[in-house]
Amino acid sequence: MELIPELSQIVGASHVLTGADTERFSHDWMRVYSYTPMAVVRPGSTDEVSKVVKACVAADVAMVPISGNSGLTGGTVAEGAIMISMERMNRIREVSRDARVAIVDAGVILSNLHDAAEAEGLVFPLTFGARGTAMVGGALSTNAGGSNVVRYGSTRGLCLVLEVVLPSGEILNSMSELHKDNSGYNLKDLFIGAEGTLGLITGAVVRLFPKPQAYGTAMVAVPDLDAALDLLNRLQTATGGAVEAFEYMPRAYMEGFRATFPDRRTPFDCDYDIAVMVEVGATAPRDTVPLEDGTVPLVSFLEDTLATMFEEGLVIDAEVAQSDGQRAEMWARREAAAEVSLHQGPVVNNDVALPLDKIATFLDMAGARVRAIDPDADISGVGHLGDGNLHYTVRPTDMSAQMKHDIMEAVEDVVLELQGSFSAEHGIGISKKPQMARRKDPVAVATMRAIKAALDPKDLMNPGKVLPD
Amino acid sequence: MELIPELSQIVGASHVLTGADTERFSHDWMRVYSYTPMAVVRPGSTDEVSKVVKACVAADVAMVPISGNSGLTGGTVAEGAIMISMERMNRIREVSRDARVAIVDAGVILSNLHDAAEAEGLVFPLTFGARGTAMVGGALSTNAGGSNVVRYGSTRGLCLVLEVVLPSGEILNSMSELHKDNSGYNLKDLFIGAEGTLGLITGAVVRLFPKPQAYGTAMVAVPDLDAALDLLNRLQTATGGAVEAFEYMPRAYMEGFRATFPDRRTPFDCDYDIAVMVEVGATAPRDTVPLEDGTVPLVSFLEDTLATMFEEGLVIDAEVAQSDGQRAEMWARREAAAEVSLHQGPVVNNDVALPLDKIATFLDMAGARVRAIDPDADISGVGHLGDGNLHYTVRPTDMSAQMKHDIMEAVEDVVLELQGSFSAEHGIGISKKPQMARRKDPVAVATMRAIKAALDPKDLMNPGKVLPD
Repeated sequence: MELIPELSQIVGASHVLTGADTERFSHDWMRVYSYTPMAVVRPGSTDEVSKVVKACVAADVAMVPISGNSGLTGGTVAEGAIMISMERMNRIREVSRDARVAIVDAGVILSNLHDAAEAEGLVFPLTFGARGTAMVGGALSTNAGGSNVVRYGSTRGLCLVLEVVLPSGEILNSMSELHKDNSGYNLKDLFIGAEGTLGLITGAVVRLFPKPQAYGTAMVAVPDLDAALDLLNRLQTATGGAVEAFEYMPRAYMEGFRATFPDRRTPFDCDYDIAVMVEVGATAPRDTVPLEDGTVPLVSFLEDTLATMFEEGLVIDAEVAQSDGQRAEMWARREAAAEVSLHQGPVVNNDVALPLDKIATFLDMAGARVRAIDPDADISGVGHLGDGNLHYTVRPTDMSAQMKHDIMEAVEDVVLELQGSFSAEHGIGISKKPQMARRKDPVAVATMRAIKAALDPKDLMNPGKVLPD
Repeated sequence: MELIPELSQIVGASHVLTGADTERFSHDWMRVYSYTPMAVVRPGSTDEVSKVVKACVAADVAMVPISGNSGLTGGTVAEGAIMISMERMNRIREVSRDARVAIVDAGVILSNLHDAAEAEGLVFPLTFGARGTAMVGGALSTNAGGSNVVRYGSTRGLCLVLEVVLPSGEILNSMSELHKDNSGYNLKDLFIGAEGTLGLITGAVVRLFPKPQAYGTAMVAVPDLDAALDLLNRLQTATGGAVEAFEYMPRAYMEGFRATFPDRRTPFDCDYDIAVMVEVGATAPRDTVPLEDGTVPLVSFLEDTLATMFEEGLVIDAEVAQSDGQRAEMWARREAAAEVSLHQGPVVNNDVALPLDKIATFLDMAGARVRAIDPDADISGVGHLGDGNLHYTVRPTDMSAQMKHDIMEAVEDVVLELQGSFSAEHGIGISKKPQMARRKDPVAVATMRAIKAALDPKDLMNPGKVLPD
């Protein structure tokens, strides 16, 4: 049978989109990549995904999984391929308050899972700006990071179990929610972060956490990054690790935000070179901080710490949210990063991770090397400072391929000199394959290639991504 | 060149043991398995390991890595193979107090790493009875568990970076201590727990943690397992997760301990059916527990909690360590488990993991099914109750292969009915391969097999282990 009619038989004709109906799937969110898929298939169950994959394998046609399409590295480019959309697989199968887990389909939108967890007094702490469209499957496939990694760890650590449709179409279920399970190789962590190249994630068991009973949230201007790290360490030590987010928002980001959203408020009377957004979460029994002379509520402790550091000259200005509305406003400002970047037009984007104590050195060194290439380049960025993760963006005066390449290489050089990574949380997709070729241990790349060939011998599962050509 | 002379050239003739010199390597610790290796090679560096592996591959000779030889599943059986001993690779390359990591050779003995961490006011929290002989490499290869997983997580989570010699002899270095690194497939977690079948771990970067400033340690007799879990939950909730260990030591274990060590003290005037050993660790700022009417030291909180539960009938008896000596005595009693088991003679050993709230059900069901097979079987065990991990041992009246098989299958049946795992922390090795064949998802096993074939096409790296025949 022809492939398209066969796929229609499996999922129903209304769920096989072709031609103009594929338009919304035919480009990435930032419109850096556009492409023409053969069709978009929307299966309604894991079993249907399995049958779709088997049909594509029999027809030797490439498959590209797609969930929320909020990726930033071209991981869903699908020229001539069958896109397998997870959007109909959106069931939250179970939320267990006692076991503190949720069992979900891969197509569940992150913010829907957030809501379901909150209804049980819990949180699913994976969050970022695109949470209203991003889906669990894509977040797991890319090992997406976000703003709460500093407290709750990586996406990898939030996932206990995966259900995966392999490139053969077989369904692999690593179902085991146990704290200890040593029965053979760890397959779960191989699929997390593989960006769909080793199989298609269809479901997961993820961890939930007690919802903080109160938040202390503040925008803080500091004289330098050492002072910012001092603030982070003081809060972490005194609260036993209750810092939920510690976000870097320098002057250039604030200026970009104001240019993008001229009607929205920015904090402080004037901008400062370096500001951070800090949030602490008060989960019993940590809703007080034990001090020598008694305990204080966590939010008061945040205010007291900022006041002390202001007196010491380590904080220049601070604004503590006094209401849920002010807190939401602070978060909206941080989470507008993708829109701000889009408004600024094409940039050379670097998603880098560095040891925490080397961020200032990185900014000095990278800035100098970029300006040596293009003295008038705009340098901006935003980042998860608590994780050492910067989204370091450069807008050169000309966007030629050579210029982009030179700037990218210059930034990478500094990252590697400081023992950082050229890919922190956005993944590799297509856009960072040159870095994989240039910078990753060749033995590691060869090992990855051997695994890919073993699990996907026909190279049909999201081909051309992650591994260098 | 012949292989043995070639190996002698690589590592020096005095480090290639043959004949009688291999005796101490030629059997496992429990003397369940014995075998005759072709030779034991003791390389002194990662580079030498690489050369040894390349020589063995060229000669088509199997290799078996061995570190402390304290494994319990026959993972180092090496009939006719070259054993690669890590004992000379025992350098603690670096202990960083600030970054809270240690960089170590695979042959570092666990207790030596413990001492090195303590000298910096830190702990490496992977510990178990064999810590005086077990080495880091073996612990990582088997993803060994132990007594502190309840607080610090699995061995997997304690390791940031691996250095591995692949079955090809190439050296793979995943060196990146970053909190976020999304540059390709996660290879580290593939090698951890692979028991040397995918490559040979030669070095690692591991995490260290602040050393608790005080411990509260107690032996507690409880009326039933529900009361034990109640104690665990009360302590965890009030202390924000400061429970370091929560060990199950039932009457049969205490009796076995007394029979093995007649001169050593056991707690309580008489034995109780169910006792647990609990330890809480006071790390600033959690050295006090905030209560409505003030704070109390953590150790007092442990005593108060036990007193309250005694009044409620949920604790029958308790003994809180009043000195470091008493604490050490309690730990020695727990960590004698392997000697106690050896003294008891051959047993059918099950290393199972279960959801925490199903332990009591498991004990009831498994006991009934074992006694249906052999009414006079001795049932004993010990375990890490805080992780749901039991070492459930059965000594049947006859140790025929059929009897052992029937008991093993009966216990497995119950484990799987309760959604547990047949292998919690000891690994698969040889002894649990039948369980892998019987109980593991065949799609998962086939995927593991494909990965093994891709990375070790000649099947020379610890062949015959982990994967079912």
